Amino acid sequence: MFQDFSDTNTKHACAERVQKLRAIFSDYGVDGFIVPREDAYQGEYVPACNERLQWLTGFSGSAGLAFIFSDKAALCVDGRYTLQAAAQTDTSIFEIVHTSIIRPTSWLAQHLPPNMRLGIDPTLHTVNAYQQFQKTLSKAGGLLVDVAHNMIDDIWLDRPEQPQEDVRCQPLVHAGLTAQQKCEMIGAGLKADDLDAFIISQPEDIAWLLNIRGSDVPHTPFALSYAVIDKDGAVTWFIDPQRVAPDVANYIGDHVTYRTPIDLTSELSSYAGRSIGIDPSTTPMRIAQLLENAHICHVANPISLPKAKKNTSEVDGARAAHLRDGIALTRFLYWVDQKNNQNNLTEIDAAKKLEQLRAETNALLDLSFDTISGSGPNGAIVHYRVNETTNRKFQNGDLYLVDSGGQYQDGTTDVTRTILIGDTAPLDAISCFTRVLRGHIALAAARFPVGTTGGQLDILARAPLWQVGLDFDHGTGHGVGSYLSVHEGPQRISKGGDVPLEAGMIVSNEPGYYRAGAFGIRIENLQVVTPAIQEGHMERPMHCFETLTLAPIDRRLIDANVMNTEEISWLNQYHQRVLNEVGPALNTHEKAWLISACAPLA
Amino acid sequence: MFQDFSDTNTKHACAERVQKLRAIFSDYGVDGFIVPREDAYQGEYVPACNERLQWLTGFSGSAGLAFIFSDKAALCVDGRYTLQAAAQTDTSIFEIVHTSIIRPTSWLAQHLPPNMRLGIDPTLHTVNAYQQFQKTLSKAGGLLVDVAHNMIDDIWLDRPEQPQEDVRCQPLVHAGLTAQQKCEMIGAGLKADDLDAFIISQPEDIAWLLNIRGSDVPHTPFALSYAVIDKDGAVTWFIDPQRVAPDVANYIGDHVTYRTPIDLTSELSSYAGRSIGIDPSTTPMRIAQLLENAHICHVANPISLPKAKKNTSEVDGARAAHLRDGIALTRFLYWVDQKNNQNNLTEIDAAKKLEQLRAETNALLDLSFDTISGSGPNGAIVHYRVNETTNRKFQNGDLYLVDSGGQYQDGTTDVTRTILIGDTAPLDAISCFTRVLRGHIALAAARFPVGTTGGQLDILARAPLWQVGLDFDHGTGHGVGSYLSVHEGPQRISKGGDVPLEAGMIVSNEPGYYRAGAFGIRIENLQVVTPAIQEGHMERPMHCFETLTLAPIDRRLIDANVMNTEEISWLNQYHQRVLNEVGPALNTHEKAWLISACAPLA
Repeated sequence: MFQDFSDTNTKHACAERVQKLRAIFSDYGVDGFIVPREDAYQGEYVPACNERLQWLTGFSGSAGLAFIFSDKAALCVDGRYTLQAAAQTDTSIFEIVHTSIIRPTSWLAQHLPPNMRLGIDPTLHTVNAYQQFQKTLSKAGGLLVDVAHNMIDDIWLDRPEQPQEDVRCQPLVHAGLTAQQKCEMIGAGLKADDLDAFIISQPEDIAWLLNIRGSDVPHTPFALSYAVIDKDGAVTWFIDPQRVAPDVANYIGDHVTYRTPIDLTSELSSYAGRSIGIDPSTTPMRIAQLLENAHICHVANPISLPKAKKNTSEVDGARAAHLRDGIALTRFLYWVDQKNNQNNLTEIDAAKKLEQLRAETNALLDLSFDTISGSGPNGAIVHYRVNETTNRKFQNGDLYLVDSGGQYQDGTTDVTRTILIGDTAPLDAISCFTRVLRGHIALAAARFPVGTTGGQLDILARAPLWQVGLDFDHGTGHGVGSYLSVHEGPQRISKGGDVPLEAGMIVSNEPGYYRAGAFGIRIENLQVVTPAIQEGHMERPMHCFETLTLAPIDRRLIDANVMNTEEISWLNQYHQRVLNEVGPALNTHEKAWLISACAPLA
Repeated sequence: MFQDFSDTNTKHACAERVQKLRAIFSDYGVDGFIVPREDAYQGEYVPACNERLQWLTGFSGSAGLAFIFSDKAALCVDGRYTLQAAAQTDTSIFEIVHTSIIRPTSWLAQHLPPNMRLGIDPTLHTVNAYQQFQKTLSKAGGLLVDVAHNMIDDIWLDRPEQPQEDVRCQPLVHAGLTAQQKCEMIGAGLKADDLDAFIISQPEDIAWLLNIRGSDVPHTPFALSYAVIDKDGAVTWFIDPQRVAPDVANYIGDHVTYRTPIDLTSELSSYAGRSIGIDPSTTPMRIAQLLENAHICHVANPISLPKAKKNTSEVDGARAAHLRDGIALTRFLYWVDQKNNQNNLTEIDAAKKLEQLRAETNALLDLSFDTISGSGPNGAIVHYRVNETTNRKFQNGDLYLVDSGGQYQDGTTDVTRTILIGDTAPLDAISCFTRVLRGHIALAAARFPVGTTGGQLDILARAPLWQVGLDFDHGTGHGVGSYLSVHEGPQRISKGGDVPLEAGMIVSNEPGYYRAGAFGIRIENLQVVTPAIQEGHMERPMHCFETLTLAPIDRRLIDANVMNTEEISWLNQYHQRVLNEVGPALNTHEKAWLISACAPLA
């Protein structure tokens, strides 16, 4: 199993750990310390050894930040996590700060004692974040003090080892371009921008660029490391050379030079006088400090866009991965439908069964994230993660929301279905589900001119809900990697998504509606941007979406009477496609069920 | 008549005028000169004496810029005006530069001779524009040279007089708030932003703030002038005191001090050391220069937003103005429909008749812009202005596009209708008209959460066209003043419109489609943002639009078969409202026609 549902609460340890941290403040000459959830690579997932925030506070969410002063401590989390943080940490020690209401720097400005010397580990904060702290401290008459070594690591005596997993090849059949081709392309872009080199501080960028994958963190197959790419396409990769076997290094190409991570300091200081690009929104401050004698240029990450625009091999891989994953999910939906009258099914049972069916594809390398398996009121918690304490038995009349995905060599999946348990949907659920579905269809069926951004399209998925005063508090869509991160930029479909959608970009389409204490609805497919076929007298080149995800959408929750002809026609065609593509892989019982699940709406 | 259709071509004079300008280059120590269309107030309309660009080049469009070098000259215009500019100017002297393809500063960078001393009048260019020129010149090793006096004015011997029209009161019944109340509100905002004062360089802002109107330029009823508002709400107004009669000054209030325009220099120099806000996107460079010893703060114009959010009195006025205007327009549509079989009607006849019917309301103070009266292929020219040369007779099977508006004491109108002449619509016109209408309806019927911007809504009006590869190359909607500018910010409905739509804002809703050489379609109503009535279980406060414009939309151009129930229902309800509100003001023949024009679609 890739999942663990144990409720690993460590709030009892908070008091002792915070006390130990405070006890070494004087050794470092500080009056406080900032503990972010991020590690030196700023990713969504971190290895166990870098779960410093969780170790200190007990809070296990994917984003957060703690401030520890001598006489006060705060745990800052966003709206998704305020309840969870209060439950997981010792609130007699930590004040919970809701960052949706007050930003951490604002809280800091209000609570900084005079002449504060606030310790910070510059390897764990981006240039932008670090400078904001600096400004806040400076305004308050305090000082941000770099610590030479992370103070948590001093007191975390049983800290797990750094991951040292071997690096693996991502085969050319899936990558589509050799590492050499990619590096030359990125290098040429640097040259055009008058840069000598760019610092790659994000492991997923290295994975894409060098056609390698790793196993250092759960769910995202990259190798934690930094690299530098030169304007001639040469790459210096800071990774323990033992982790790259000769055949892997050979596959990557001889334009890559290997240096151990501890060489980073000497190597970056050798860039004095050269023009070096960094992306200040993702690059740690420590790297900028090491480059102090170089001419640092703040630029947009030049790897994000080519990585986001999947080539033909990557899109072909995504199609294969989605068919495989859709078969597993369809078998799961059949299984739930058969089981759910037995009343013994729990959210954990369901999540385990879904993982088992994905594993039976014999191609599953990981889940792309912990499955969100929420029934009834738990479905209304947008980022719900079931554990043994919250685990709930399905009840007749529940909606069950399952958001899950797999990592396969040829692609990453992410899909949400919301289904009825039993036979009577809760009040309003059909009306709300139909509005969510109409929004999903409007986005899936959209055509739009080249240059259109996700920010422009976002409203399509929301308008049917807005008509009756409803909405959902998350983005409509995020980019997805190719056997890489399940959340990937630069494009997104949400207010403020200002990157044009280009052919080959994979995005999720996941409108939802959440009624607190009652039910949650989300319908999510992945779709790839593709040029629209020129037909009739189209005057302008248009883009559209090809839906990748293949699994039925629960017809029992749809009110066809309020849908228009185009919407019904989209759904019927989609279901016909699911039946045609998924059907042949099913057994007789599953197939009979799917035929009925995909029957056309009148 | 407020309109003049003569074809005032002056291209024959270009050669002599350009030569005269070049002859005085040496007197000013320059090698060239920039002639913008804008005057010192950066407005869309300028008085005859400030039509310097037209005098020099012959080009009469509303936006443009000329560069005159010793041996070269360029006239820079945007995509709307490239054909018109080429027709109006002497192209043996002026190269036409399409600013949609190459920006004026880029053209300049490519064509600047070495060591160029380029003359500029800093009163006619905003701080932002001036600084861009400065950067361009500096990069090319040249110099931007301020001229002490506009060089065109030296050689334009029969230049008209400066307008000196009396200032008029905008009655409180329409303004809703006294000038004193408005000034105190704006002053309080300055105080909160730590500003001592703000320079008001836009006459429409002064008109709104002081509840006055003027007659200095066509179509926009303001008085060309500058003012300064202090953080305590006191205003210094730079206007010839003879233009403000005692009763008007008394109406405005004694918080206003009057200074003549020539006092501006001494007054601004007295602000040394104080924090003075200016909006660099609209304030002339000359003002920033006069403030050189003040602490200049670049801020967003604090008057734009309160001016845009109409109060109850202003919205009530808009409703009354739109009903009055809708009656005139409906009578016009009836008249065209009766006349159009006679085959003698021209675009100018129609524009004159429409103005006459508006004048018959006895409330028309001006048109809000020159009527766009385009039949057949002329309708496809987005900013078409008919003159005696282009004037075209209506033909059976034409679409006729008429975009027009009136200035009334209680409000400004702007409306476009596209109607069929005769009985057979051109190929595809019905299909395209229906898509434009569906886009119009989607925007008119939208509900959206507080905080939603026009940039988010824009796609609603375009999606039906995008589905078949069509689009239109203009914004979907602009703000409209209250007996003020027909184009007003800060909100707009278009890609990049990033200002949230707030209750009371009036915006146009004007999707279109233009088939070059064949026909143009645009359907435009004004609508005001209003809180949606809470009904059912709306969880969040929503805004919606109340349509202000009242005139029938041509049913002969609608294919109801491709519209959904909501769309048909919106149109039928709108037509019923038009009939209920406009009908009672019509004579028997007109009313019978309107009943049929407003008959419900099946």
